Amino acid sequence: MSRFRAEIGEQVHVAERLLERSAASAKAIGDRIRAVPPRGFVIAARGSSDNAALYAKYLFGVRNRALVALAAPSLFTHYAQPPRLDGQCVIGISQSGESPDVIAVVEEARRQGSMTVAITNNPASRLARAAELVMPMDAGPELSVPASKTYTASLLALALISQSVNPERSFAAALANVPQAISRALEREEELTPLVPPLMGPRAVVLGRGFNFSTAEEIALKLSETSYVLARAWSVADFEHGPIAIVEAGLPVLIVDGGGRVASDLESLRVRLEATGCHVLRLSDASGVPEVLTPIPLAVLGQLLAHQVAVARGIDPDRPRTIQKVTRTW
Amino acid sequence: MSRFRAEIGEQVHVAERLLERSAASAKAIGDRIRAVPPRGFVIAARGSSDNAALYAKYLFGVRNRALVALAAPSLFTHYAQPPRLDGQCVIGISQSGESPDVIAVVEEARRQGSMTVAITNNPASRLARAAELVMPMDAGPELSVPASKTYTASLLALALISQSVNPERSFAAALANVPQAISRALEREEELTPLVPPLMGPRAVVLGRGFNFSTAEEIALKLSETSYVLARAWSVADFEHGPIAIVEAGLPVLIVDGGGRVASDLESLRVRLEATGCHVLRLSDASGVPEVLTPIPLAVLGQLLAHQVAVARGIDPDRPRTIQKVTRTW
Repeated sequence: MSRFRAEIGEQVHVAERLLERSAASAKAIGDRIRAVPPRGFVIAARGSSDNAALYAKYLFGVRNRALVALAAPSLFTHYAQPPRLDGQCVIGISQSGESPDVIAVVEEARRQGSMTVAITNNPASRLARAAELVMPMDAGPELSVPASKTYTASLLALALISQSVNPERSFAAALANVPQAISRALEREEELTPLVPPLMGPRAVVLGRGFNFSTAEEIALKLSETSYVLARAWSVADFEHGPIAIVEAGLPVLIVDGGGRVASDLESLRVRLEATGCHVLRLSDASGVPEVLTPIPLAVLGQLLAHQVAVARGIDPDRPRTIQKVTRTW
Repeated sequence: MSRFRAEIGEQVHVAERLLERSAASAKAIGDRIRAVPPRGFVIAARGSSDNAALYAKYLFGVRNRALVALAAPSLFTHYAQPPRLDGQCVIGISQSGESPDVIAVVEEARRQGSMTVAITNNPASRLARAAELVMPMDAGPELSVPASKTYTASLLALALISQSVNPERSFAAALANVPQAISRALEREEELTPLVPPLMGPRAVVLGRGFNFSTAEEIALKLSETSYVLARAWSVADFEHGPIAIVEAGLPVLIVDGGGRVASDLESLRVRLEATGCHVLRLSDASGVPEVLTPIPLAVLGQLLAHQVAVARGIDPDRPRTIQKVTRTW
């Protein structure tokens, strides 16, 4: 078994451990935010972590009524003209905690006197040292190049922070069900097999909306990284605005469906797409968590799917061409 | 000649007219921003206009030291849980001014008492009526489905607002040179012909960084909309973090190069890519404007290129499959 597949399987345990151990960190962050409410959140991240940041835009928006901006790290590095961050809560998300541009954003935020938080799998990292508060992912070493368990751990860490700021009993119960939701997603591995042949390349479209726009982006990234399929994600709204013109017979279009408020949009697009003869595929949540948490089990399904596609294409997912684990973009 | 190609050719005149006529609108917006400096900017937009919003993130960041957040319209519509926008300057960008989700964001911002601005080609539109201040694009009717002149007009409108907030003599001179820069780009149409064969599909990668990350996104969108090539843009930094694994012999990778602070990153990636045997293509600015304004002439080159690819593929760029001009995403 590849390391990638092994780490996908660890996610039930990772989520259980994060729920058990993170209470003090989440409380410290929530207390600080409630004591001096920030104007909004600024999140710095790269790759999969940037998709977690996209999730936070919807999560903190819906649950905490907070505005979330994704940082443009080159303003802090290449252009050396960082924006004013006073009153913002600046969060850096990095598995390794060693991504130099994420560190640059958090260090500048600290210089400007903003509240800073690191979400990282390495509490001894430079990112963790740069930030005032740390939310450890506690996911254990991630040896596979493509992220899996640290992605869902980041989502769960963000959800725990959101809950700590605005506690709700029903959301606490939903959070406690996350490990089981992951376990149910893992049990569905065989159901994904029929989706593999249409995704053998060279291209694919992945669609989502709202909370699961981030999941669509993450699945597109996983397909690109592990299977070399050029996959492009769009929000359903943006897709219908123009890029839908690319749809033609045989093109695989994967719809990521977490139900909830956007379900009817996804359904009407599905009907429209099926009339074109393209290959409409669907990844639906059946884990029982509310829409806001479906990005976690749906990401697990996406990882399992990307893994199957890689194996079917004869690619070793642990050794993607031309990537190293920590990319020091500066 | 297609309408799309005709409207591409109008851009020198559109830029001249906007420079001549927009002084009062830009001054009103700049005065209001200087009188009560906003905490940051929130921009709502779809499709090409969303790429203009991405440009604003770098433009307002570098020139005005302002934080820019791109709005997630579904928070305002489907989820009915809009974030708090107090103290923000909220800008809606829409060619038609009739995009319902952009209007929803601006209307909510107004309800919350925030400053609101509409950048639109239709000053009689619902978006223009919803916003407190209007910056007309003054581009004349855009009949082609894929946007061209209204895209560069949005970029120029944003640059004029940025200048009105923080005036600089050298930037005024650079702005005055924009029509000439567009004219130089238009003169280079024949130079683009050798780039057409590798871009005939079915897929392509477009890369940029900093100011021209937005241009890379816009060119990828134009290729998808007009030529049905599944084109995916990445910032160079994100691309090297993982998706670079998809690179293989024959894959077209178009690098959008506006020089300036990110030029050495683009150059080192180009060298790395050429060693892989993929098809490295380059779109470089030669118009003489500073890096901050190169997204305008580079977008024009991208439009000309997308047009040539569409024609070579036998597609009528004025009639993309399955798109209508105003998409009422709600």
